[in-house]
Amino acid sequence: MPTRTALKTSLLFDVFALSQQVGTLLQLAMRDAGMRPSDYAAYSVVLEGGPLTLTELARQLGMPVTTAADYVRAMLARGHLRKQPHPNDSRAQLLALTPAGVRAHRTANTRFERAYRAIIRELPPLDEADAREVLQRLTESAARAADRFAERLADS
Amino acid sequence: MPTRTALKTSLLFDVFALSQQVGTLLQLAMRDAGMRPSDYAAYSVVLEGGPLTLTELARQLGMPVTTAADYVRAMLARGHLRKQPHPNDSRAQLLALTPAGVRAHRTANTRFERAYRAIIRELPPLDEADAREVLQRLTESAARAADRFAERLADS
Repeated sequence: MPTRTALKTSLLFDVFALSQQVGTLLQLAMRDAGMRPSDYAAYSVVLEGGPLTLTELARQLGMPVTTAADYVRAMLARGHLRKQPHPNDSRAQLLALTPAGVRAHRTANTRFERAYRAIIRELPPLDEADAREVLQRLTESAARAADRFAERLADS
Repeated sequence: MPTRTALKTSLLFDVFALSQQVGTLLQLAMRDAGMRPSDYAAYSVVLEGGPLTLTELARQLGMPVTTAADYVRAMLARGHLRKQPHPNDSRAQLLALTPAGVRAHRTANTRFERAYRAIIRELPPLDEADAREVLQRLTESAARAADRFAERLADS
């Protein structure tokens, strides 16, 4: 197996290869989970971080609001999501899972956990907390860089 | 902005949010690049690591061979890729970019570099080399975990 470091690729390529490889793992582990791995991520954010606004959901998922809105539409169509009034902002709505949404997440979770345990087993010598900190800092760096681009496009 | 660490999410969620956020950055920076960011990754591997086999391409991209074959088909259809005989294995073929493929990659590269410089500018206090090492080790962990799943499925 050729090592990836032998290529003159970049940090951004490394992110691509990692996400593809994790995608491959999740496809295998979640093939009978009843939802796609990306859906599972969206359900998880609403369950763990909700009730929350569409903007907050998008930020947590690292997506533009328009993309997060596609996920929300699909979850609503499945009867897995409900909207409730925002207590402090009459123009905003909060998103929460319905009982059926919580059950769908729980089913998928047992499959997701297989993938999670499998990668944790293969992690050493890397430390999980250290790796998570690097991933989260990189995400924040990418978010700031994307915000700058969006500002520049809005000004041009 | 809510911090991501506040959620009881996992390492795999962090990878998802990172890849989405980098995808958002690349969409903005490469909107007039003539190819999608994921195509650019495939062209880059063939250019930097080629001539190479389909299996090697798939491994570098972190993809199943079937998915990498879709990229190869599209590149062949655009006249950007050519197949040549493998010098040591008469059953295998090597993939290389055509001159038109190299030109398409070069055009996209100027846009890609804008995204790369933008995230590097926002990286501190994270060190680029340290971050790349973590990403590459995580990719190898995910590859080993996926291989185990694939073996188990083949045996069952």
